[in-house]
Amino acid sequence: MVANRGEIALRVVRACRDAGIASVVAHSGRDRDTEAVRLADESVQIGPSTPAKSYLNAAAIIQAALQTGAEAVHPGYGFLSENPDFADACERAGVVFVGPSAATIERLGSKVEARALMSEAEVPLLPGSPGTVGPSAALEVAERIGFPVIVKASAGGGGLGMRVIDGPGGFEDAFRATRATAGTLFGDPRVYVEKYLETARHVEIQVLCDGHGGAVHLGTRDCSLQRRHQKLVEEAPAPGLPTAVLDEMGEAARRGAVLAGYRGACTFEFVVHPDGSYYFLEVNCRIQVEHPVTELITGIDIVQEQLRVAAGEPLSVTQEDVDPRGVAIECRINAEDPDRDFAPAPGRIEEFVPAAGPFVRVDSYVRPGYQVPAEYDSLLAKLVVWAPDRDGACARMERALSEFRLSGPNVRTTREFLAAVIDHPDFRDATHSTSLVESWWCEPTPDEPEVPAPE
Amino acid sequence: MVANRGEIALRVVRACRDAGIASVVAHSGRDRDTEAVRLADESVQIGPSTPAKSYLNAAAIIQAALQTGAEAVHPGYGFLSENPDFADACERAGVVFVGPSAATIERLGSKVEARALMSEAEVPLLPGSPGTVGPSAALEVAERIGFPVIVKASAGGGGLGMRVIDGPGGFEDAFRATRATAGTLFGDPRVYVEKYLETARHVEIQVLCDGHGGAVHLGTRDCSLQRRHQKLVEEAPAPGLPTAVLDEMGEAARRGAVLAGYRGACTFEFVVHPDGSYYFLEVNCRIQVEHPVTELITGIDIVQEQLRVAAGEPLSVTQEDVDPRGVAIECRINAEDPDRDFAPAPGRIEEFVPAAGPFVRVDSYVRPGYQVPAEYDSLLAKLVVWAPDRDGACARMERALSEFRLSGPNVRTTREFLAAVIDHPDFRDATHSTSLVESWWCEPTPDEPEVPAPE
Repeated sequence: MVANRGEIALRVVRACRDAGIASVVAHSGRDRDTEAVRLADESVQIGPSTPAKSYLNAAAIIQAALQTGAEAVHPGYGFLSENPDFADACERAGVVFVGPSAATIERLGSKVEARALMSEAEVPLLPGSPGTVGPSAALEVAERIGFPVIVKASAGGGGLGMRVIDGPGGFEDAFRATRATAGTLFGDPRVYVEKYLETARHVEIQVLCDGHGGAVHLGTRDCSLQRRHQKLVEEAPAPGLPTAVLDEMGEAARRGAVLAGYRGACTFEFVVHPDGSYYFLEVNCRIQVEHPVTELITGIDIVQEQLRVAAGEPLSVTQEDVDPRGVAIECRINAEDPDRDFAPAPGRIEEFVPAAGPFVRVDSYVRPGYQVPAEYDSLLAKLVVWAPDRDGACARMERALSEFRLSGPNVRTTREFLAAVIDHPDFRDATHSTSLVESWWCEPTPDEPEVPAPE
Repeated sequence: MVANRGEIALRVVRACRDAGIASVVAHSGRDRDTEAVRLADESVQIGPSTPAKSYLNAAAIIQAALQTGAEAVHPGYGFLSENPDFADACERAGVVFVGPSAATIERLGSKVEARALMSEAEVPLLPGSPGTVGPSAALEVAERIGFPVIVKASAGGGGLGMRVIDGPGGFEDAFRATRATAGTLFGDPRVYVEKYLETARHVEIQVLCDGHGGAVHLGTRDCSLQRRHQKLVEEAPAPGLPTAVLDEMGEAARRGAVLAGYRGACTFEFVVHPDGSYYFLEVNCRIQVEHPVTELITGIDIVQEQLRVAAGEPLSVTQEDVDPRGVAIECRINAEDPDRDFAPAPGRIEEFVPAAGPFVRVDSYVRPGYQVPAEYDSLLAKLVVWAPDRDGACARMERALSEFRLSGPNVRTTREFLAAVIDHPDFRDATHSTSLVESWWCEPTPDEPEVPAPE
């Protein structure tokens, strides 16, 4: 049973079909008439459109699973995907949670505990506080490691609950504001302090573990193109970094996952300094939005691997089988208006002609006539291309963006903005950092997005 | 300049964009408002809908190329793609013909000359007449090599101008009918006789040569699923055959292409007997409809390689770089009614939701609201999937076919028929032969299709 919506619900249903597994989609009232529901073997409504009453309604989801005889629940990303109580409730109800154990989610979900564990696994960490800290200890740490620093919610994730502080002036106010946000968003106000790298790259490693000793990493993804900590463009492998560094990061992530006793698919996020040094940031205990770029370079269906592991089977591959080839780039096409500070711009879709043809993949869930709901996140489609080399992949992405058409009254998308990003000389040279988009396109903005996004 | 229409025109425009080459589409009046025209940098109308006045109008095409300043003409498949006079006229006008020289097309276009050349290259041939023959010599050959035999137009191709003869009764009538058809279709009534293998597989080798000594083969494609010699489903690599045989066929094809002094992309077609012996059939001097399956297993963009060679550049790969991975399957979705003997069923498309997601590629040219013309061939879309193994590819094709939706008043497609083919136990076991579809689905039919198809 898929307990999610949008493109990821359809992605999981496709994996089930591809693997010969019957599927049920658990959906909100609003999502009754969607492609995921259409392609699934069965569907069940779990509540009205409000996420709290449907996709965040653990009891209703588990009841629907029991009622339809579903053996497992795939949570997708966002919603309940990293909620240890939900994972635990599934297991107690006799339904397999497609993901790690509640204990693992809890442990890795605490950024402070995750840091301690990774230190033990000899995964490099940024200088920072040894654990959660109060304002005066935080300032002490900041002065010792040097500004800028970043204050992060220990329970945070998905780019939320964090704030960069440039110097001691106003430190305490900024610190307290982050604590308050953390309390509101995650029900846990505790924060910690880390060194902040201004011109770093965001590089992550996809890891798969089967709980039978099988543990592989699938290489790197670069997700440095972000706006307000939300990813816009991702690619695999991370460009412009020495192979030795990438391999070392992969091994570090695999080591960390094995030490954590991980089961399923997870992502190790790192920051990489221009000098090639890299530092652990956090582990995401779920499928990522950007997983297709790794699939296209490795040929491995990551969602099918999640299903295998959930069924108690070993991974289909060993580390020796993993042989990445070429370059893949993904653009997230959102229903947002880049000229109005990326304000959500949903509406009814009249024309939808996705890009297609050689080495182009589109993961979407919309169709002509579809009314994009305002209740949910703004991701409309993931446009993904592959080519033997990075220049070829950039050219192909430009082509794919140029043939992608999605329009309707009031609907605005990020398509043209993304074309400008792909065309940016820093991106072409692979000299970009996480600050590129904000320094180039955006007005300075407050550090917290108003609307939580899925990841 | 692309001098073609439908999906292949769009395919070539995409390759131009992907390679950073400006493109012009030369189109008929009917094809003014198509996706290829939309995506190209420029377009020019070469004549009205009638193929003879547009896509077969060599003078108009060359004039359009000169007028738009096009440096080269890509002929796609069908139409003028294997016409030596057109190739010659292009070269004389100072426009590069994307394909081999007129002399090569002429030589390989004569099946009898091609057989002689391949004999020299030590490519295995079926027993048959040493050259073109008259009725009494043909009967002598047939009795020597044993029935059934196949009588083929020496100038034929694309599955047209051939007839299987099961025994000496009525031999002469059947022979004369084939000569007559050959005269009508190809302007050349000469025929030859070959042994006919009833339970053979159709296996072909994609070859690329750059005219600078670079020559590679990209492995095998199996195209045994045919109806009236028209391919329906293709896959790469050919399943259920020993690797040693496949490698040997690849080397034989490469040897033959090098001896022919070939330049560009070509396909060597073979029949393969269940005992693993294989025999040369013909060479196609153009891009094939089914080229995407080879692209998906090799990661090589065959159309871009054609453009490189046409520009005088070497191939981007050597034989050592060619490293096929996994299995790809293509289904041709045609506007035909399988319940009415595959009668063309064009019309206005109301809904078009192509399959998408992981490891699915769609090469089409239609969109919602598009009126499928009755003047041209019935191919609407090529649905192509990839997976690490054949079972996975079959499952994924079933999924992709199940999500593919194309409908409109009067429009019928072969989608459900193709799903039944993919589900057929002989196909699943890879024990099928070229006679599967006709013996299982079709009523016995005359040997010649009424409407010439593109390939």
